Amino acid sequence: MATSRIWLRTPLHRALSSSSSFSRAAAPAAHGRTSFRPFDRTTLARPYASVTSSDTYVGRIHKDQQDLVQGEPSGPRINTAIPGPKTKAGLQHLDTLQDTRAATMMTDLEQSIGNYVVDLDGNIIASLPLGYNSKALIEAASSPEMVRMLVNRPALGVQPHSTWAKTLEESFMSVAPKGLNQVFTAMCGSCSNETAYKAAFMYHQRRKRGFNNEIAAEDLSTCMKNVGPGSPDLAIMSFDGGFHGRLFGSLSTTHTKALHKLDIPAFSNWVSNPFPSLKYPLDRHQAENDKEEARCLELAEDTMKNARTPIAAMIVEPIQSEGGDNHASARFFQGLRDLTKKYDILMIVDEVQTGVGVTGQFWAHEAWNLTSPPDIVTFSKKFQAAGWFHRPEIRADAPYRNFNTWMGDPIRALQARTILQEIKNKDLIKNAAETGAYLKHELLSIEKKYPDTLSAIRGRGTFLAFDLPTPQERDLFVTRLRTLGVNTGGCGSQSIRLRPMLVFQKKHADIFLDAVEKVASQHKKP
Amino acid sequence: MATSRIWLRTPLHRALSSSSSFSRAAAPAAHGRTSFRPFDRTTLARPYASVTSSDTYVGRIHKDQQDLVQGEPSGPRINTAIPGPKTKAGLQHLDTLQDTRAATMMTDLEQSIGNYVVDLDGNIIASLPLGYNSKALIEAASSPEMVRMLVNRPALGVQPHSTWAKTLEESFMSVAPKGLNQVFTAMCGSCSNETAYKAAFMYHQRRKRGFNNEIAAEDLSTCMKNVGPGSPDLAIMSFDGGFHGRLFGSLSTTHTKALHKLDIPAFSNWVSNPFPSLKYPLDRHQAENDKEEARCLELAEDTMKNARTPIAAMIVEPIQSEGGDNHASARFFQGLRDLTKKYDILMIVDEVQTGVGVTGQFWAHEAWNLTSPPDIVTFSKKFQAAGWFHRPEIRADAPYRNFNTWMGDPIRALQARTILQEIKNKDLIKNAAETGAYLKHELLSIEKKYPDTLSAIRGRGTFLAFDLPTPQERDLFVTRLRTLGVNTGGCGSQSIRLRPMLVFQKKHADIFLDAVEKVASQHKKP
Repeated sequence: MATSRIWLRTPLHRALSSSSSFSRAAAPAAHGRTSFRPFDRTTLARPYASVTSSDTYVGRIHKDQQDLVQGEPSGPRINTAIPGPKTKAGLQHLDTLQDTRAATMMTDLEQSIGNYVVDLDGNIIASLPLGYNSKALIEAASSPEMVRMLVNRPALGVQPHSTWAKTLEESFMSVAPKGLNQVFTAMCGSCSNETAYKAAFMYHQRRKRGFNNEIAAEDLSTCMKNVGPGSPDLAIMSFDGGFHGRLFGSLSTTHTKALHKLDIPAFSNWVSNPFPSLKYPLDRHQAENDKEEARCLELAEDTMKNARTPIAAMIVEPIQSEGGDNHASARFFQGLRDLTKKYDILMIVDEVQTGVGVTGQFWAHEAWNLTSPPDIVTFSKKFQAAGWFHRPEIRADAPYRNFNTWMGDPIRALQARTILQEIKNKDLIKNAAETGAYLKHELLSIEKKYPDTLSAIRGRGTFLAFDLPTPQERDLFVTRLRTLGVNTGGCGSQSIRLRPMLVFQKKHADIFLDAVEKVASQHKKP
Repeated sequence: MATSRIWLRTPLHRALSSSSSFSRAAAPAAHGRTSFRPFDRTTLARPYASVTSSDTYVGRIHKDQQDLVQGEPSGPRINTAIPGPKTKAGLQHLDTLQDTRAATMMTDLEQSIGNYVVDLDGNIIASLPLGYNSKALIEAASSPEMVRMLVNRPALGVQPHSTWAKTLEESFMSVAPKGLNQVFTAMCGSCSNETAYKAAFMYHQRRKRGFNNEIAAEDLSTCMKNVGPGSPDLAIMSFDGGFHGRLFGSLSTTHTKALHKLDIPAFSNWVSNPFPSLKYPLDRHQAENDKEEARCLELAEDTMKNARTPIAAMIVEPIQSEGGDNHASARFFQGLRDLTKKYDILMIVDEVQTGVGVTGQFWAHEAWNLTSPPDIVTFSKKFQAAGWFHRPEIRADAPYRNFNTWMGDPIRALQARTILQEIKNKDLIKNAAETGAYLKHELLSIEKKYPDTLSAIRGRGTFLAFDLPTPQERDLFVTRLRTLGVNTGGCGSQSIRLRPMLVFQKKHADIFLDAVEKVASQHKKP
C-alpha cells in the first residue's frame, strides 16, 4: 500500500502549500473526538476546485466517488500552531465566563462545511450526522414550521401541538426498532436513560403490586421522605466500562473513568458486571472470545439471581463507546436477553452513540436478531433529538409520573425527520457500511506493516477504533496526529476511536488513512 | 366592583356571540397551568378589531393601555365542548405513540398569538415569556445566526464556537445576579439543578482535601463501584413542599406530591426541612409569621448541625411554586444564608419558576438584599435556556468533571438574548409589577365579597395564587372556570396559581378577573 502524501494540484492546493509547512492533506474524518485541522479561512467561502483527472496521485485514490456534500474543500489546512492565537484568545475570553479546559478548539460555524470544520485558526464538532451547514438542514431550519416550533416552544406533555403526532410518525416512529411502537421524548442522552430507568422502576413495582393500582398509604407517605417502601431499594444493573450519562441515576450506571464519578454520591446497590474483554479481529479468536463471553454471562446470571437489591432493569450499549469501543457477539447479547427474561428484568439498550446508521445498520442492536426485542431502546446524539422507544406495557400507570415541562423538543424532532430523509435520499447507511469496510480494511493493512504500533482494529460501519500498546503511546500517537492536522481522541485506556459523520466518504478516508500511516511509520515508544 | 361580562361590540364579537353560548369573554391569563379557551380559529388569521370608545362596558376597563402585542383578538372564544372533537381525535392519535393523559389541550401554534392560544378546538402553553408568535422571536428565529446554530449544533464544552462568549455576555451575563460572574449552561431545569448539586459535592470534597488536588487511590477505586469514600455519603438539604426536578438527584430534593416520587429509588440521607407555613396577607399576620419563620430556621439549624450525612448544599425556591406558592420573608432567607455560612454549606437558589421578571424583579431573590449573595442561582423555563450562575470558586478543579455532550444549547441562549431585549424595549418587568399589583388588588376585592370561597391571595408581580377552602372545592373551582373557558391549574393542596406571560396586561387581567368573580359568585360547596 502506498504511503505518500496527497498533493492536490488545484489553485487551492498551491495557495496552501506556499503558505504553510502543514499544507499537505491531513485527515478530514469528522466527529466525536476525532477531528481535523482547518483549511484556509479566507478562501473557504469560495467553492473549492474539485480534483481533476489530470492531478497526479500517489496513494489511495477515490476521485470517482460522487460528492455527498457540494462545495467541500479538497483537504484540510493548518495556518498556525495549534491552538492558534485567535483560538487561544477566544478561549481565554470565554474562560472568564465558563470552564473551557475541556475545549480542544473554537469553531467558526459560518465557514465550516460538510466534513470540514474551521476554527478561529481551525477544527471539529461532535455528533453532526450530515456535516456542517447541511443544505437540507438549512432549508428545514428556515421553514415556517421550524420557526413556529422554535418561537412557540410547546410543553409537549400538557399541551402537545396539532402536528406533533405527525412529526413523531415521520421522524422517530418511521425507524422504531421492531416491537417498540411507543416513544418517550427527552432533551439529552442522560435524561433519556434516567427517564427510562424511572419507567423500569415503576413497571417493576406495578408488577409487584399485581397490576392492581392499589398503592399502600405507607408507600405514599414514605416516598415523600426518600425512604422505603415508597422510595424502594431497587437497582439498575450495568456493565464495567459502560457509559450512560452523568446525572445522579445515569452516573450510577456509568463505569468509565474515576474523573466522571469521583465525589458524587451514588446508588451503592446498583450493581455492575464485567463486560467481555475480547480479542480482535474477532473471527481469529473465536474460541477464547466464546469462553470470555460465557464467563461474563455466568457472572451476569449470578448477579441477577443473587442481587441483594432487586434489579428492575439492565442497561447495555451495543458497543461500549466511552469505555473503549468494546464489542461483544450477537450471541452474547442474546444470552443477556434470555437472562433478563428468565429473571423478569427489563432490557434497556443504550443506542445514544451507536444509533442512526453509523454502524452500517440503523440501530446497532438490529445485528443481534434477538428472539425477543429489547424492552427499551434509548437514543440521542446523531438524531439531535433524544428519547427512548418502548413496548406499550412500559407506559406508566398514571399521568405525570414520568414527566417534565418540555418532554423533548419538537425542533429536534423536525431535524431528525430531515436527517432521515437525507439518509434515505443519499443512501447514507450504505455509505457508512462501505466507507467503514474500506477504512477497516486499510487500517488492517497498516496494522500488518506496523504490528508493534497498531492493534485491535475493530468496529462496524465507520464506528471504528484501534489500540496503541500503552496509554502513553496512545497519547503520543494522538499528539503526533494533531501536529499533522489530525485531531483524534481516545476512548478506554489506550484506544483511538473514529466517529465520522454519515457524509464521510472514501475520499475523506484516504486522507485520514495517509495521516495514520505516516504517524505509524514514524512511531517510537516514548 | 362590577361583575358583568365584557361584551365587545365589534364584528368579531358579534360573530362569536351568535355562535356559542360560551362566547362571552373569558380569561386570557397565560401560562404555567393557567390557560384559556380559544377564539374562532377561522377568523384568527385576520387582525382583530380593537375596542373602541363607543363600546359599552360594564366592569373593569383598561382600553387606554398601549398594546404590547399587535394583532391579538379582543377576547377568547369557545366553539365546542371541552375538549372538542378535533382535540379528542388528535390526542387519541398521539396516544397511540405517547402517553397523553397529562394533556389538557392540543395547540394550533400557527393560529395562536400573544396571550391567546388556539387549540384544535382551543387552549394554552407553559413558559412562553413573550406570548405566541412573538414578532421579535420570529425575527430572531429566521436570522442566519439562529439557522447556523440550529444546523451546526455545537458541543459547547469541547468545541465552543467563535461567538459563544459574546452570546453569553449579551444574554445570561447581562442579568447575572450580583456576585455570580460565571455561568454553567444546561438543557433543562432538572439538569441545571443536578449539575449544580454535582458542583456542590465536588466543592465540598475539594475543601475537605484542603484544596490540594491530591486524590487518594482509594477514592479513585471506590467511586468506580459506587461506594465510599470515592462516592461519598453527602447530602443536599431541601425543604418540604420544594420542587427541584424529577431526575434521580433532583427528585430526592423534591417534596411535593407522592405521585412524583413513588417507586423511584432516592437518596435516603438527603434531608428535608419544614418551609414556613405563613398566613396571608403577610402584613396582617406579622407576629405569627415571624414566629413560624423562627421555628423553621431553628429546625434548619438543628438539621445542619446534627445531620448524620454531611450537607454540601441547601437548595431553596424564592417562592415554593409547585408546592403551593408558599412565600417567606426576606428575613427568613437572610437567616438561611447566615446558617449556610455558619455551617459551610453552599446556598443554591432555584429560580427556574421565579426568574426572568415575573415577580416584578428580574430575579425574585433580589428582593432579599442578602448580605452575601447565594453561591449558585439556577434558571430555566421563561429564559427558554437553562443553567446556573455561580461564584468562580465553585468551578470544578479539573475539566470533564461536570460535563456532558451539549452543555446547553446556543439557540436557546440566542432566544434568551431576544427575550431580554424585548423586556428592556417594552419595559415588561414594570408591566409585570403593575399588572400584578392590579390583579392582586382586584383579587383581594373579590376575596372580600366571597370570603368563604377565596382566601390567601398572595404573590409578587403576576406570580400570584389564591386558595379555596378544600382540595375538593379547588378542583370544583378549576372545573367551573374551565366550563367558562378559563383553564386554570392547581398547585399545593388547595391553591390555584397564575403564571401569565410577560405581555399580560391589565386588559387581559380584566377578562380573567371577571371570570373568577363569576365563578366565585356562584360557588357552592360540593
